[in-house]
Amino acid sequence: MPDLDEVSASATPAVAPGGVGIVVPRDFVHSRPFIFQSGQSLPGFTLRYETYGQLNAARDNAILICHALSGDHHCAGRHSPDDRKSGWWDNLIGPGRAVDTDRFFVLCANCLGGCVGSTGPSSIDPGTGRPYGLSFPFVTLRDMVRAQKLLLDDLGVAALHAVIGGSMGGMQVLQWGIEYPGFVRRLLAMATTAREGTQAIAFNEVGRQAIMQDPAWNHGDYPKEGGPRTGLAIARMMAHITYVSDASMDRKFGRRKKAAAQGEAYTFDVQFEVESYLRHQGQSFINRFDANSYLYITRALDQFDLAQAYGSLEAAFAPVQAETLVVGFTSDWLFPPGQNRTIALALLRCGKRAAYAELDTDLGHDSFLLESEDLYTLVRGFLEREAAGVEFCP
Amino acid sequence: MPDLDEVSASATPAVAPGGVGIVVPRDFVHSRPFIFQSGQSLPGFTLRYETYGQLNAARDNAILICHALSGDHHCAGRHSPDDRKSGWWDNLIGPGRAVDTDRFFVLCANCLGGCVGSTGPSSIDPGTGRPYGLSFPFVTLRDMVRAQKLLLDDLGVAALHAVIGGSMGGMQVLQWGIEYPGFVRRLLAMATTAREGTQAIAFNEVGRQAIMQDPAWNHGDYPKEGGPRTGLAIARMMAHITYVSDASMDRKFGRRKKAAAQGEAYTFDVQFEVESYLRHQGQSFINRFDANSYLYITRALDQFDLAQAYGSLEAAFAPVQAETLVVGFTSDWLFPPGQNRTIALALLRCGKRAAYAELDTDLGHDSFLLESEDLYTLVRGFLEREAAGVEFCP
Repeated sequence: MPDLDEVSASATPAVAPGGVGIVVPRDFVHSRPFIFQSGQSLPGFTLRYETYGQLNAARDNAILICHALSGDHHCAGRHSPDDRKSGWWDNLIGPGRAVDTDRFFVLCANCLGGCVGSTGPSSIDPGTGRPYGLSFPFVTLRDMVRAQKLLLDDLGVAALHAVIGGSMGGMQVLQWGIEYPGFVRRLLAMATTAREGTQAIAFNEVGRQAIMQDPAWNHGDYPKEGGPRTGLAIARMMAHITYVSDASMDRKFGRRKKAAAQGEAYTFDVQFEVESYLRHQGQSFINRFDANSYLYITRALDQFDLAQAYGSLEAAFAPVQAETLVVGFTSDWLFPPGQNRTIALALLRCGKRAAYAELDTDLGHDSFLLESEDLYTLVRGFLEREAAGVEFCP
Repeated sequence: MPDLDEVSASATPAVAPGGVGIVVPRDFVHSRPFIFQSGQSLPGFTLRYETYGQLNAARDNAILICHALSGDHHCAGRHSPDDRKSGWWDNLIGPGRAVDTDRFFVLCANCLGGCVGSTGPSSIDPGTGRPYGLSFPFVTLRDMVRAQKLLLDDLGVAALHAVIGGSMGGMQVLQWGIEYPGFVRRLLAMATTAREGTQAIAFNEVGRQAIMQDPAWNHGDYPKEGGPRTGLAIARMMAHITYVSDASMDRKFGRRKKAAAQGEAYTFDVQFEVESYLRHQGQSFINRFDANSYLYITRALDQFDLAQAYGSLEAAFAPVQAETLVVGFTSDWLFPPGQNRTIALALLRCGKRAAYAELDTDLGHDSFLLESEDLYTLVRGFLEREAAGVEFCP
């Protein structure tokens, strides 16, 4: 394993053809008070981020990537040559890829309230020497975006060529267009919504209850390596079902049984492959995610309702100057196509430049993360044309 | 409250117009060994059941109702005049109703493995004087049906005019047609499947994990009034979401906040009405359902796959003599319309008399339980015509 300190730039030549290569996360430390939308405040915060490609002389070729609930800043490349997995959107981002790092300076930050390097409830409160836990301020999507803006200012970015994100990332994209209209040229939101719906709130609540009813949660006060691992795993298992589709799970697992369970038709242990897969999803999640962050971020999702926050969707979008592309996926039942189309329609009603594209997939909500030449074509076209000319699909 | 012992028949004149009135559950005690499909056995079992209407002289006007996972034998009438709620299918069953108790002798039994009077894992094992817990035999849908047949034999029922059920009840309906072809004239299965799908298994598994990871589960060994109440409530909250639809929850609750939470935008306590509703669903369920029964019955659902059990769906349906009506509901995403249609198509391929009807509702899986004149018309027509003439909707 190389000494990562020797790597001077975030990105070095690719390990795999087309990739951004080995990347090193960096920390942006904001040392002034930050007031949250709730009125609560922190004396400062850290955002962990990665960048790929080079900022141009005009400082206006930056593309900000916003991650989803369980994502983080590591969206492309690998952290070491023997890294088993690349960043979560590596298929989309890289030299010559749809988000072309030969042309654009791409960056992504772990969200405020997160747990992968950015300040969140698992961070140490300097006042007590212990994790913030529930004393951490409530976070909103707008708080996340405002914190990202401070990072971009610090990096000297003059304007964003685009903000791109799916799911919770897509909500941030919309918030960016509203909050900093002169700063953003293109908004690309996928598999998202302008209003967290009732069913999505319901699933979030079940996940939170699984966490908060776990005795190890202890009102949010638990040691870094402990905590409500059981509850968090259950929350993740359930949430994972909502990220995929019946069809995709059926194709992947069907009713196949684990080899070990073939002889044993009657057991409450793992019997079907899909059970084993879900348990694995739960177990791997608890090793990388903080339960309190899960509470905070799902609550931020619940509270996201642009129409409610601004009076109407049209009022919310009134300041938007960017050109917008919204992409929905037919099999996404967490943020169904209609919720995505609604965004584009509201923007069009406000006289904004907006388009909606619907991709026919059977992979569910996670479709935006998966390989799709159609998606790459849409993204590339939207980013590279001077005035994005994607046609509106009504 | 009247002395229930004074009520001589199961059903007395209606409390509310059209209803079956006050009903008294009865117990059928089978005192001979019962061998389960797993090869395990019990020295005997009890089924709690209710009946409405009168068995005719030919003993062939009986209609068996099969309940769903969380249902029980109490499907019509009330147990006392001040009963707040009537049986779970009271809207369908009664004098002059779609399942007309003036014409038919209607009965319903709590399933084997259940926890509302029938023998299940919470029953006392006479050998140990303690609840069976995990020493209870694994139960299948076929076991449930075979136990019901013993009850019907005991009551002297000569033939079933129909077997009716939704969801798990619908699976039993299909199993009835296969297992006792000469005994059943009509099969009416709603919101069901011939094969528990991958997503349904996945949700069941998350529910089981919530129960089994609750320390109070204690490998299934817990006192009657204790047990994994937290885990069971979480399982139920999640399952409830799968019984309804995004549209119906949105209409019922939207993003409305509880009055108490209006001033408090930032809390992990109940904030949205839908959260309060789900918590209530969880809390009321744990007062009426046994966690081990939940494990056993969901496992029975997982194992239900007629094509796998008989080689093919056509092989499974080969012995069927009954006329079949399958009803799917457009908004049912737990057992979607296609899974219901598949049943009717397979029966037709076998040369059986079968029809499929699809009702356009936005109430989700639970649509089969809710008021619907269209459903009543379908049921009435199917039950009352000599040769049911419901048209096949391809």
